[in-house]
Amino acid sequence: MGAAMLTGVITEILIPVAAVVGIAFALLQWLLVSAVKLSPERQPPAGGNKKNGFAADFLIEEEEGLNDHNVVVKCAEIQSAISEGATSFLFTEYQYVGVFMAVFAVLIFLFLGSVEGFSTKSQPCTYSKDKYCKPALANAVFSTVSFLLGAVTSVVSGFLGMKIATYANARTTLEARKGVGKAFITAFRSGAVMGFLLAANGLLVLYIAINLFKLYYGDDWEGLFEAITGYGLGGSSMALFGRVGGGIYTKAADVGADLVGKVERNIPEDDPRNPAVIADNVGDNVGDIAGMGSDLFGSYAESSCAALVIASISSFGINHDLTAMCYPLLISSMGIIVCLITTLFATDFFEIKAVKEIEPALKRQLIISTALMTVGIGIVSWIALPSSFTIFNFGEQKKVKNWELFFCVAIGLWAGLVIGFVTEYFTSNAYSPVQDVANSCRTGAATNVIFGLALGYKSVIIPIFAIAVSIFVSFSLAAMYGIAVAALGMLSTIATGLAIDAYGPISDNAGGIAEMAGMSHRIRERTDALDAAGNTTAAIGKGFAIGSAALVSLALFGAFVSRAAISTVDVLTPKVFIGLIVGAMLPYWFSAMTMKSVGRAALEMVEEVRRQFNSIPGLMEGNAKPDYATCVKISTDASIREMIPPGALVMLTPLIVGTFFGAETLSGVLAGALVSGVQIAISASNTGGAWDNAKKYIEAGASEHARALGPKGSDAHKAAVIGDTIGDPLKDTSGPSLNILIKLMAVESLVFAPFFAAHGGLLFKIF
Amino acid sequence: MGAAMLTGVITEILIPVAAVVGIAFALLQWLLVSAVKLSPERQPPAGGNKKNGFAADFLIEEEEGLNDHNVVVKCAEIQSAISEGATSFLFTEYQYVGVFMAVFAVLIFLFLGSVEGFSTKSQPCTYSKDKYCKPALANAVFSTVSFLLGAVTSVVSGFLGMKIATYANARTTLEARKGVGKAFITAFRSGAVMGFLLAANGLLVLYIAINLFKLYYGDDWEGLFEAITGYGLGGSSMALFGRVGGGIYTKAADVGADLVGKVERNIPEDDPRNPAVIADNVGDNVGDIAGMGSDLFGSYAESSCAALVIASISSFGINHDLTAMCYPLLISSMGIIVCLITTLFATDFFEIKAVKEIEPALKRQLIISTALMTVGIGIVSWIALPSSFTIFNFGEQKKVKNWELFFCVAIGLWAGLVIGFVTEYFTSNAYSPVQDVANSCRTGAATNVIFGLALGYKSVIIPIFAIAVSIFVSFSLAAMYGIAVAALGMLSTIATGLAIDAYGPISDNAGGIAEMAGMSHRIRERTDALDAAGNTTAAIGKGFAIGSAALVSLALFGAFVSRAAISTVDVLTPKVFIGLIVGAMLPYWFSAMTMKSVGRAALEMVEEVRRQFNSIPGLMEGNAKPDYATCVKISTDASIREMIPPGALVMLTPLIVGTFFGAETLSGVLAGALVSGVQIAISASNTGGAWDNAKKYIEAGASEHARALGPKGSDAHKAAVIGDTIGDPLKDTSGPSLNILIKLMAVESLVFAPFFAAHGGLLFKIF
Repeated sequence: MGAAMLTGVITEILIPVAAVVGIAFALLQWLLVSAVKLSPERQPPAGGNKKNGFAADFLIEEEEGLNDHNVVVKCAEIQSAISEGATSFLFTEYQYVGVFMAVFAVLIFLFLGSVEGFSTKSQPCTYSKDKYCKPALANAVFSTVSFLLGAVTSVVSGFLGMKIATYANARTTLEARKGVGKAFITAFRSGAVMGFLLAANGLLVLYIAINLFKLYYGDDWEGLFEAITGYGLGGSSMALFGRVGGGIYTKAADVGADLVGKVERNIPEDDPRNPAVIADNVGDNVGDIAGMGSDLFGSYAESSCAALVIASISSFGINHDLTAMCYPLLISSMGIIVCLITTLFATDFFEIKAVKEIEPALKRQLIISTALMTVGIGIVSWIALPSSFTIFNFGEQKKVKNWELFFCVAIGLWAGLVIGFVTEYFTSNAYSPVQDVANSCRTGAATNVIFGLALGYKSVIIPIFAIAVSIFVSFSLAAMYGIAVAALGMLSTIATGLAIDAYGPISDNAGGIAEMAGMSHRIRERTDALDAAGNTTAAIGKGFAIGSAALVSLALFGAFVSRAAISTVDVLTPKVFIGLIVGAMLPYWFSAMTMKSVGRAALEMVEEVRRQFNSIPGLMEGNAKPDYATCVKISTDASIREMIPPGALVMLTPLIVGTFFGAETLSGVLAGALVSGVQIAISASNTGGAWDNAKKYIEAGASEHARALGPKGSDAHKAAVIGDTIGDPLKDTSGPSLNILIKLMAVESLVFAPFFAAHGGLLFKIF
Repeated sequence: MGAAMLTGVITEILIPVAAVVGIAFALLQWLLVSAVKLSPERQPPAGGNKKNGFAADFLIEEEEGLNDHNVVVKCAEIQSAISEGATSFLFTEYQYVGVFMAVFAVLIFLFLGSVEGFSTKSQPCTYSKDKYCKPALANAVFSTVSFLLGAVTSVVSGFLGMKIATYANARTTLEARKGVGKAFITAFRSGAVMGFLLAANGLLVLYIAINLFKLYYGDDWEGLFEAITGYGLGGSSMALFGRVGGGIYTKAADVGADLVGKVERNIPEDDPRNPAVIADNVGDNVGDIAGMGSDLFGSYAESSCAALVIASISSFGINHDLTAMCYPLLISSMGIIVCLITTLFATDFFEIKAVKEIEPALKRQLIISTALMTVGIGIVSWIALPSSFTIFNFGEQKKVKNWELFFCVAIGLWAGLVIGFVTEYFTSNAYSPVQDVANSCRTGAATNVIFGLALGYKSVIIPIFAIAVSIFVSFSLAAMYGIAVAALGMLSTIATGLAIDAYGPISDNAGGIAEMAGMSHRIRERTDALDAAGNTTAAIGKGFAIGSAALVSLALFGAFVSRAAISTVDVLTPKVFIGLIVGAMLPYWFSAMTMKSVGRAALEMVEEVRRQFNSIPGLMEGNAKPDYATCVKISTDASIREMIPPGALVMLTPLIVGTFFGAETLSGVLAGALVSGVQIAISASNTGGAWDNAKKYIEAGASEHARALGPKGSDAHKAAVIGDTIGDPLKDTSGPSLNILIKLMAVESLVFAPFFAAHGGLLFKIF
């Protein structure tokens, strides 16, 4: 077998060091962003007497004296309102979800504790029957603890991201006065703060949890890592509510604002006269930032847990080889270092001077991080793994070489890049697919929608082949462990991915603030260019999230099947097949709920906005202020109310199916939901992204073709706006929530697997 | 075991007798429809000197002297134009598809012949190794013959349906002058002609083919029924092109006509000034009638073949028990008789007097036929089956009782009814889902689309549970044979289903003819009411088609797995899983192609229609005639050109996957396509149906709510028209083609199974 070159002690030091370096780098970036000073020469503006501490920061920029101070005051005011709205929404959301989480934690304890009847006696291990492991009750306790830990870490990740984004948006607007390059760097650095904090934080908490749990578990690694899986479940459960709640919030506001503002009243996007405009901008921060942060943190936590739990019953775990066991964490540590270097390419080594350089710069980030990470994976695989080892493969131990595992991680990483590029091709208005969609607006909204849907469907083909090839190669080389590390490979550059991803909503907000503060047309053009690139990168981020979700949930699925002691999942048995077809239906059920929720909330919003326009005198003329707070309240109430049913559907399905129909039917459900959900998720994200950018293509009028379709307000543009509005819930609510659906059901099944193995399938037992 | 009560000789007589009775009944109905006389008092109108013989029939109705003869002449003229356009399109289509079919027939012969190297020697049987069976070369020859037979029967079914529909549409219009009841009966009787002809024809050809093949095969039933499977493949291949080609034709014309006529020029639907109006009406006949006829014939042929091929290797086949072997054909025979009685309830026992009685009358047809058929199944199961027998179940023989098989057929039948009712609930404007969608038009097209998509997704839930329960029960009772006969049960009332289904496009055409002939507003209202009920029944028909397709393809899938000698299809093997995820992607790829085709063809149509309005002086004023022929040509060319790529995707995928990746990956592909395709198919059909009826709901203004949204031309109505237009390709092109995709890939895999078992998986063999 041969031992790893890296000793256990060094491993124990390297991982936290990498995490701390990541956090330090994030703080450095934050410091640089905060250098965009708002100096304290004036009194805080009227909005400054609000509750949260941020109001004190609304200071006026002086440097270069680019513009009158009035604008700066306005920017600060707006930033305050957005930040406050977002904070207050997240607090409300966390309260409700907190109750749900507490109840679910109790459920986890009860279900897992009942496996051995709450006995405190040690029991034979599941996989090594000759040894004794900790009692099921201990697993119940520790699983519950790690579940809560995951949920809290997810909350922190999302919340911090939101805080940073709302701190950065007005600063990006102000920097836009100096040029597009400065604005880009501010937005990108802020994204990096979030990316590095999240990646490092996730790694550190997991590392600490493992070490603390080890104090109790000692040599029982099987039990230890089974309990650690709760971390992934906690992270993903929180992410589900974050994505769904945030998604409904942001799109109810966005759709509502657009339908009355742009379509009926013919006022521009983000016009301060629109009562829903603050809610819209708050939505970007709670949905696209906080929701997405929680989502990717969940993926990261789950793929780590999936790899760890499989490793614990492979030779790494059996031989107590700590370094090899920590391979997934070492990969993530290397990822932080690689992303750190990559970030410097965007912020220090090159400079953006023109609008057309933005998209290439972001794309370069992806390529550089992937190329560097390939080397990084090679190094980690070389020093951290024994030259040969065995991996648990459904009851057998499969022999694997270290270079084979390198290929597994690398193929995941590169598949991610392929998915990213395909997504870019289908959603960027620099290429023909989006231009075709824009062109179809000539004949109205109907053809726009038909072409957009067709584009989304078509964009699924290559990503699915990329995922299929990764699965085949990594599965063939290293069974389910191979798939878990392939997912980890795809997520290893998560810090860069998140930086690029968070950059989008920050730019979007910056544009909104520029419009609301009444800044000049040129500045708005600059932020629009940043935003258009952001739409594409957001789609790329979603592509990564979906691709990794597919791999992660397959790995979790494999771990679940092993733990539930099923030997095959044969499609030809009726139990499995009905699971498969019902599982494939769940993403539709879930999407029906979330889309209807957005539609319903948007209708409420439309009525409120119309009411304000009709009843507040002087609003259209800009002489009166709209009542922003009521619109914020409508979005908040709607998202809190509407996120519960879809959340419950996802959280309860595995429990119900496993308890009443057993682990085999549940396996079918997981496989069905996975293969069906991944398609809808990809197509929904890309359709929505394409519609958004088709609209921006017509608005920007950068080519002769685009000018022939425009300008703003033309029939073709109106048709494009309708497409954009339809795409909103697809790309920001139902689509991205689906990755969480497939991951969450898989990780939940894995956590509850001991219960299903012992007591599941009640219905078949009775009949 | 106990023998069946029915002797073989009586079985041999009963089946053709039932088929002949069905054909006779169809002819009787046709006679009754033709009683709507167009007496020969005048010269045939100007259009009468066209090529096809129908022109001579354009005679003028005299009875009751309800209207001026001018109108009757016009109706006859229009009917002639529609019939001619449809005939000429179908001939063109059949020419192109004929070439494809010929090539494919050669492929079948070569692939199957090569299994034993074109040897003419007898070989050991696949399932009973101790016996000798006919050589593989014989199977190649007979499979090719039955493939061509299926294709020809499918062509005849579609063509006859189209002829009847175009014969009936003007007659329905003329009857509408006498009242809604008369018009209803004419339309329904015409539908029945098609339904009975198709059901009886399909049964008779299959019966004759089996008996002819038996002359060569003798006691080698295993080989005989393997060769007969080609009949299903032929039927479905033809149906694929019929559905796709017809679907593109009809929707290119429909979307094109609506976008310019209704949206831009604000002229009513079916206005004779619209140059695309004839193409639109032709489209209904080639898409919804001929395409749907071929589709359901394909389902019927495939489920019979699936049941027969499984039976041939069960005790029925092994013991050469002819009556039990013919159980599927006896069920179909009983179905013809039951539907005959059911039809009398609509045409003779009750009379429609008011508009609101139409939908209940059609619904009653479904309920009566299902109730009667349950008894019919009981009788057939009792007299045709031994009290106990064995069924082949993946290598083992499973013991089954006759009453268990009764339950299998009955659950399929009732699941069909459930699917039908759910579809009605989600697509009829009498219920809240469609009314909600209509209501969302208040805020424009975007919310209409969001609500419509959500409705379609939601409508999937119950049908999937119904299918899952049928699969579970019939699979548990009688393995794959149970599923095959469940599918047959769902299709046993196909004659009634088709009658209801064909009724829709006939009424739609009748309305079009009334509008074009300038008939009074009241007559148009009557045909609109017939048509609205027709939209719902069309959706129900699609529900049946999809539900039965799911069951059929699962049964075929099971037969394929048996024949390809795979013992399990384990999702946890990489070969199968990549098949599963790629298979689940195929419906998206296919839909992307078909929707884009419709979009592209519609754009061409829009440009032509615009050109005519701009360049033909006096067209808008009604003083000049538009150039209908160019629009017909655009639709024809587009559909011929665009149907090849999606057709090739479906036809070639199983061949490529089976040859290069082997039978296991192909199993994954089939399962993935099945569970994913069925969801998209149901949601697409229902979304489209709901949008269409939401529009009609606003137009009809039958309730206070509806009147608040209307009238025609209001903003809400315009939003509804956009939804309707988007729904067109979903419900009539991509959605219904998907059932054929899943069935066809399964039956093709079964036909080629001997080849894949012998030579498949080249790629894995090389590496």
